[in-house]
Parts: sequence; C-alpha cells; structure tokens
Amino acid sequence: MSPRLAWNGYGKAAVRLVKVEREGPENEVHDFTVDVQIQGDFLEAHLEGLNAAVLPTDTMKNAVYALAREHPVAPPEAFGARLAWHFTGACPAATSVVITITVHPWERAGSSAMIRNSTERRVAAVTVASGGTAVEAGLEGLGMLRTSGSAFSGFLRDRYTTLADASERLMATDVSARWRYARAPGDWQTAWRDVRAALIGTFTTHQSQSVQQTLYAMGSAALEACDAVSEIRLVLPNRHHMLVDLSPFGLDNPDQIYVATAEPYGRIEAVVAR
Amino acid sequence: MSPRLAWNGYGKAAVRLVKVEREGPENEVHDFTVDVQIQGDFLEAHLEGLNAAVLPTDTMKNAVYALAREHPVAPPEAFGARLAWHFTGACPAATSVVITITVHPWERAGSSAMIRNSTERRVAAVTVASGGTAVEAGLEGLGMLRTSGSAFSGFLRDRYTTLADASERLMATDVSARWRYARAPGDWQTAWRDVRAALIGTFTTHQSQSVQQTLYAMGSAALEACDAVSEIRLVLPNRHHMLVDLSPFGLDNPDQIYVATAEPYGRIEAVVAR
Amino acid sequence: MSPRLAWNGYGKAAVRLVKVEREGPENEVHDFTVDVQIQGDFLEAHLEGLNAAVLPTDTMKNAVYALAREHPVAPPEAFGARLAWHFTGACPAATSVVITITVHPWERAGSSAMIRNSTERRVAAVTVASGGTAVEAGLEGLGMLRTSGSAFSGFLRDRYTTLADASERLMATDVSARWRYARAPGDWQTAWRDVRAALIGTFTTHQSQSVQQTLYAMGSAALEACDAVSEIRLVLPNRHHMLVDLSPFGLDNPDQIYVATAEPYGRIEAVVAR
Amino acid sequence: MSPRLAWNGYGKAAVRLVKVEREGPENEVHDFTVDVQIQGDFLEAHLEGLNAAVLPTDTMKNAVYALAREHPVAPPEAFGARLAWHFTGACPAATSVVITITVHPWERAGSSAMIRNSTERRVAAVTVASGGTAVEAGLEGLGMLRTSGSAFSGFLRDRYTTLADASERLMATDVSARWRYARAPGDWQTAWRDVRAALIGTFTTHQSQSVQQTLYAMGSAALEACDAVSEIRLVLPNRHHMLVDLSPFGLDNPDQIYVATAEPYGRIEAVVAR
Repeated sequence: MSPRLAWNGYGKAAVRLVKVEREGPENEVHDFTVDVQIQGDFLEAHLEGLNAAVLPTDTMKNAVYALAREHPVAPPEAFGARLAWHFTGACPAATSVVITITVHPWERAGSSAMIRNSTERRVAAVTVASGGTAVEAGLEGLGMLRTSGSAFSGFLRDRYTTLADASERLMATDVSARWRYARAPGDWQTAWRDVRAALIGTFTTHQSQSVQQTLYAMGSAALEACDAVSEIRLVLPNRHHMLVDLSPFGLDNPDQIYVATAEPYGRIEAVVAR
Repeated sequence: MSPRLAWNGYGKAAVRLVKVEREGPENEVHDFTVDVQIQGDFLEAHLEGLNAAVLPTDTMKNAVYALAREHPVAPPEAFGARLAWHFTGACPAATSVVITITVHPWERAGSSAMIRNSTERRVAAVTVASGGTAVEAGLEGLGMLRTSGSAFSGFLRDRYTTLADASERLMATDVSARWRYARAPGDWQTAWRDVRAALIGTFTTHQSQSVQQTLYAMGSAALEACDAVSEIRLVLPNRHHMLVDLSPFGLDNPDQIYVATAEPYGRIEAVVAR
Repeated sequence: MSPRLAWNGYGKAAVRLVKVEREGPENEVHDFTVDVQIQGDFLEAHLEGLNAAVLPTDTMKNAVYALAREHPVAPPEAFGARLAWHFTGACPAATSVVITITVHPWERAGSSAMIRNSTERRVAAVTVASGGTAVEAGLEGLGMLRTSGSAFSGFLRDRYTTLADASERLMATDVSARWRYARAPGDWQTAWRDVRAALIGTFTTHQSQSVQQTLYAMGSAALEACDAVSEIRLVLPNRHHMLVDLSPFGLDNPDQIYVATAEPYGRIEAVVAR
Repeated sequence: MSPRLAWNGYGKAAVRLVKVEREGPENEVHDFTVDVQIQGDFLEAHLEGLNAAVLPTDTMKNAVYALAREHPVAPPEAFGARLAWHFTGACPAATSVVITITVHPWERAGSSAMIRNSTERRVAAVTVASGGTAVEAGLEGLGMLRTSGSAFSGFLRDRYTTLADASERLMATDVSARWRYARAPGDWQTAWRDVRAALIGTFTTHQSQSVQQTLYAMGSAALEACDAVSEIRLVLPNRHHMLVDLSPFGLDNPDQIYVATAEPYGRIEAVVAR
C-alpha cells in the first residue's frame, strides 16, 4: 500500500514589499513581509509529479506586488484579506489560504524621510593607554530611509555596467557612527544627543547625489554640532530597494512598489575630521 | 628560532549588566553590554604557560558588577573611563585597556515599568477557508520590564527546588500576542492600538504574583478593550535577571545589580477567551 | 575651514555566487560570498556630488558574476586576486582593492548532489499525556542541493505568472523532518540513522518534477526504512538559485552561474503516513 | 462574566546541558538543549495568583541537570522519556508534559577532543595596493572542545577574584584564524589544509596551562606547517562551560555535568609571526 499524503501545504514566505504612497504632502511608507500559505488538494503533484493544479510560488510573489500596486495595503488586515481571497480564486485546488503580514515599523522624520530606531544602540568606548584616556561615543543600527531627494548619476561606466542614471531613487541605510572627543564636552548626554540630531537632520533633508555625498554632509554636520568632537567615522550600508517591473501585468510603477533586499548591499564608509 | 608573539590581547566580552536606581520617585534602568579588552606584556603566559601576570576574565566580570554597585553607571562614557582606569591599575602588565559599553534602550512606561518597542512588529493574519474569512491581529517582540510589583512565592517544592520565595523580583519579557476577531471592528487600526494599549497598561501596573497571573490579566484587559476580539493568545518568555552576589567583595546588593540572561528562560503561554 | 575627508572606502558586500562546473563526471559546486572594498581618491564624490570616478557597486556585482563565468573560481585565493586586479584596472581612482571570499562548504553526496550537515541538529521529542508516551525524532537544518535531475513545468498559469517551464533547475533546501514512532524501534540510534539515510538517499537520486514530488518520495522512503515509524512531517524550503543573465556582457550562461537568494523562499511541507 | 482560560502551558526553554562520560578510553560528549513544556490545571495560578500547583521552571532546570547526572542521556529519546515521566510525577497538576531535546553535533578529534565543523567557513582575502598583491587565507567558526588536558592556575588575584585554580577544566572555543602568505605556496588548497590540520592537531593534544598558551602553540604549529606563511592571527573565544553544583540534590559532580554558556565569554587573540 502506498504511503498516504496525510496533510500538505505550500506557499511563498518572506516576500519583502515596500509601498510608498506619494499622493499627500507627506509620503507614506508601508514596509511588509508577506507570507502566503495554501492548503488543498495537490495529490497529483505529490504522487504523480503532475503540476497542473499548482500555482507557482513565484506567481504568488508577483501577485503580491501587483495587488499592492492596484490597492491600498493599509490596514494590513484588509490587504491580507484581499490577498487571501485572490489566491482562493487563483488556485482552485486550495481549500485554505493563510496570509500573514508582518509590518516593519517606521516613524516619520520629515516629509520624505522615515526613521527606525528599533535596533538602535548607543555605544561608548574608552581607551586608556600610556597614561592617556581617549573617549569615543557612537550609535549603531539607526535605520533611515528617504523616499525622494536621492539621485545617483554621472558615474563611471564600463562593460559590466547595466545600472541606469537615476534622478530619484529610494535610499535606505542603517547608520553606524563612532566619533572621538578631543576633550570632554560640557555634558556627555547632551553631546551625544546633539551629534545624533545632526546626523538625522542632515539625512532627512540633504539633496543627495550619492551616499558618499550624504555621508560627508552628515559627518560635517556632526562636527559642527559639537565642538568637542575631533572626528567621526560613519558606515552607511546601502540597503537597496528595487523598483518592481509590473509591466508584464499591464501595470505601471511610478516609484511606488519596491522589493527590499538584504543581499548584496553597498557599503559606504568614511572618516570626516577637522 | 621560536615564533614571535607579534601582538596579543584578551578580555571579557558580553558582560550583561542591568542596574536599577531606586532612589527617586521613578526607578531608573540601565541595561548595558560591557566588553573589556586588555593589551600588554603577557609573553610568559603565551610562551611558558605562567599566568602570574594574567588577571582572569572572570575577575574582570566581577569587577564590572562590583563597580556598578559602588558608582553611577551613567553616562556610559564616565563609567567606561572608571572601568578602564580600574583595570589599568588591577593589571600591571596592561599597556592598554579598552572598555566598550553598548546601551540597550528602554523607555519609561510607568514609575516601575519600562518598555522597549525596538524589535516590536505588528502582525496581521487572514485565513480564508470553506468560504469563510478569519482575521487575527497581533504583535511580536514587545519588550517590557518591571522593577517592582512582581512576586513569586508559595509554589510547589520538591527535592530539586532551590529557588527561594520572592516578594519582589525584576520581571522582564518580550510579549507575543495574537488575537482573533469575531467580527470586523469599526476600525482595524484603532482596534489594534486599543488592544496593544490594554496589554501595556496592564503589564505596567499589575501587582503580579506570577507571570501566569499577569498574563491572564493582560488577556482579560485585551478582551475588555475591544468587543470584536473573541480570544487572545499570549506568549510571555520570562527573561530572567539574576541578582548578583556581591558579598565576596564586601558589598550588599539591595535589588540593584542584575545579570540579564538569555538562556535558559521560562516560557508562559495561554489563550484567554470570552 | 571645511571638514577633511580623512579616510574613505566603498564597495559591494555579500555578493552571493554559486558556480556549478559541469565538465567532469561529477558536478563541482562553489558557493561563495564575495565582498569588494575599494579605497582611493573619491574626494569629488564626497564634497561635490560628482560621481565620475565612482564605479557603481552594482557594476562590481555584475563583474563578479561575469568573471566567475569566464574563469575558474577555485582556489578562492586565485579568483580573489583576479577580481582585485580587475577592479584596480576598472576603477582608476582606486589606490587599494580588497576582495574577501567566504566559502560555504558542501560535501559530495552523489554525482549531482551535495550535502551540508553544518547546521544539522538531531531532535527528540517525547510527550507523556493521559498515561501514554509518544516519541518523535527528527532533524533540522540539513542542507541539500541538486545540480541536475530537478524540473518544474506544466504548472497552473494565470495573469501574474512569468515563470517559465524548466526541464532543469538547481534545487536547494534545508530539510526539517519530524517522524513519529508507533512503537519503540529495536535501537533508537539505528532507527534515526536509517531514516536520515533514506531521506538523503532519495533526495540525491530522485528525478524531481517538483519539490512536492521529491518530498513525498523522501517521506515514503523514510517509512520504508523503519517499520516503527508511523508518519513523518517534512518541511522543505525552496532556496531559490537564480541563473544570472550574462548576455549584457556578451556571455552565455549554460547553467553555471547562479545567485543564491535568501528571500523570498518557497515553503513546501507535508505529512506522509502509513 | 470573567474571561475563560481556554488553554495554558508553561515550562523552561533552552536548558543547555553538556555531559561528559569519562568511563571508557575515550571521553563521550553529549551537548543538548532541553525544553520542558507542561500543560495542565493551573487555573488558580492564573486567576487567583496562588502558585501551590506550580512547579517552578527553575526546579525543572535543576532536575534536568540532576537526572543527567544519575542516568544515561543517550539516546535522547530515552532520556527525554525519563524526563517526561519525572515531571509527570513531580507536577501533579500536569495533564501533558513535552520534552524536546536538540542535539548539537560533535565529532571525535582525539581521546579528549571533539570538533564541530558545522559553522566552519574558509576565507580568502586578497589586497592589491601600490601595485603589490597580499594574500591572506583563513577559517572562521571552527568549534573545538577539550574534556581534559586544560588547566588554568597561578593567575593574578585581587579583591574581585573568586575564580579558583583549576588543574582540569572543560575548554571550548570557536577558532577564527587568518594567516598571511609571504609568497604563493606551491598549492593553495594544500597550504590551507596543512595550516588547518596544524591548528586542529595542536588544539587536540596540547597540555594547556591557559588559552593563551594553546593559542601560541597553535600559531607556532601553523607557521611550521607551511613555509610560505609569514604570520597568523588567531581569535579564540573562551566558551565557558560551568560545572553544575549538584550538592543541594545529594549528588556529586566529578567533571561530568556542565552548563554551556553563551554570555559572557573570554576573548583571547594574538598574532604569531616569524
């Protein structure tokens, strides 16, 4: 007797969707991880290798992006219901569809800027050597994102270059900063807050021609914000957000629907000093 | 010719320190990860196996806790400098001492309660099956901590029990909650916020006899906060914070200095329903 | 006086490259994470926002894939040197190029199959309830990969489908398995090894029409391998490896150069029972 | 009507247990993570704050260590059943007990040495600057463990020292190594394997007076193993394994039952050069 398929399910997990709503005076950002899970009658696929009933998980991913273009994605409960009903129709063999949406939180930091202080940590590093004391302060994991005001063009091109000039792109990063004090500032807490505010204020308003230029502007602002700081090292990973090509589905994508990617990422770093 | 020791360093990494300052009307919480790194002349230890110059990393850990009891730990730059100078004296072979302090952020949520929304994520889960739609909402990774108002006593004891009754302890958790809607609430966003506020409000004020009792109170408050919710599942890991025994160093520890531990942890979960 | 750019560097991190060499009787798999880091004279980019000297990190990524097509990638020291020299030429402003290659290990498990037992863990789960004892065993995190013998075609298509039929594709997964014993087998260790061997043996030789079909075959083989097992639950994430389009660089890609992706992933699961 | 406790469970998760069996000619190492989960009638604890039926999760942890001392822990299915039955008796309110044991794999590398190549990755790093090429090779995440042959005594003591001299202790680490080639070796693969073998061979046989001494011996052996290597940097985190005090339970612990800890850890690093 052949073994019994007692239960089965399949789907697409970890579909990273970022939607920017650009209608109002302030851009709205929705940053989701979407999971699609389908159960149903897929006996032929398992036993016979016949896939006629199987909606590819790649199609599920495409549908998530396309439906996000055509419909509001907030509240996530309503968008989740829309997706669930869509897949119920798109996959007749399905007896149950479960959509799980995880919302990654962002807070507004400007009309086109968002901040995620979620994983942010303050750092203090003190070195004592040869009788002297050196004090550094910093922060790690400060997420920031710009929905406009960021360009990248006029760069060096060679035979391996496929990237097009961009007058607008979504720029996202997790700031790591470490600055050195030439002397003790009046108050350590105030100094730390002033430098942090300068980093955030610059990122959120700078008209960026490159991550490098923004980094230098942030470092310069930090030095200006606190006299006691002699130099600052900044590391800005470039967390690429790719515009999704929706044209196969008859849809345009005017800077609205992005894939947030984790690998690979650009890594821009520099030390700005007096 | 024997190989040359071209460079060397050693120390203690990831010393988890939580200090609660209980003097004022509101408790202050400092949650640090401290790294100690020493460089110096430790040639005999490497080449001869003679450890007379080596301050054990276990001693470094003890000193971090003892000095945190005797001195303020904020700002971290000042506490870091104090630690660095201490180890410079305690370890004569050291030519350089580096202290790195990472501050884990908490926000006040009551006189004895702190909240960390850092890793918090909102979740929506929609299931369509047999023509019906079930909607769940939730949150994950909401860190919360009570510095007082939490007891655990009168429990079952057997031959393996060493735990003492505690009329006060530090209670910390990362709340995961998932609730089911019996019907659509008037507004999904409002409903989510109301349930979240009920969970937080209860945790921050409940006089707790156990995590179980607090969990049940949180679940009950959630049901009360939103008529449309039919049941809620709560998972509350008990993130143990151990009081450090400072008596070997001639110090008391009146509920001030704790080790935050990651493993093992208690796991308390329940479903509260109408 | 404007702040000084004291140091700077940039590059592409976490370029995931998988190359399959198909010349010999046994396919060779090279699974790399490549980091490119360039230092040099990029003052204009930082201060003026002029990018003429900046080779885009996207181009770096493309070059890694193209050069992996044209040249051997083993040993990694030699491929790293080739990449470093390439970027020295491609980016005249560079004064230093650092290539770091991390090799993810795979062991041969057949002419077209590789295994990674790195993150594999054995699991045992015992439940006592109502006076009865239920024993489950399992494994988690068993990486497996097929370089041929895997197809996916004839699937359900709709307006969101862009995936093409594939008679050959690279199939990779991390097997999680949990099986239930209807009774105690003669020897727990032998039973565990027999089931594991059946799972591996099936994956490495099965002519796959879908992950579902392979999963069912693996489950069936497990039941056959041990009489005491009554059912087995398998979860097979589909770790997608995408063929890189090298045509912009005048190169073909006959199933050799892949991007290993982490998100999103397919998730296929089922319970196979007697 | 007060809310209903629809379901509840609690227990201890992530109990890290390492048992060394020292009877035979070769020591056996069992490295487990144990989870205990109990369901049952705990209504009073949830609703009334009365804990008389609640076996503390701290007691569960103690019992895991004590029972591991008194009984074999292999196969994990049998030890899991023993634990499950124990807690069924120890907690009369329990209606169900689930024990989940995850086994962390180690392979023998000597009579008192084990190796875990699970997370090991080979690394190659090439730098081109000023027209010259520098090649480094290395490995990361090579787990190693000694059950005997490791001492630490005669160290510097101060008022914060509580550590006792140890003529025997369990030594565990994850080796990170990076070595520099002064010239190209005859064959890159052979050179990498020779250095790796020297590192492993030294760790598994060295009579250690400290991690520092073992590190230096490993570095020296690496230089001896390959003429082309000019220097090697080694980082050896000291993954502390603490002997469990079983005396409260009337048991001795002759170097058998350990807690594997993740935080804090010692960090020993050095560069050994010609």
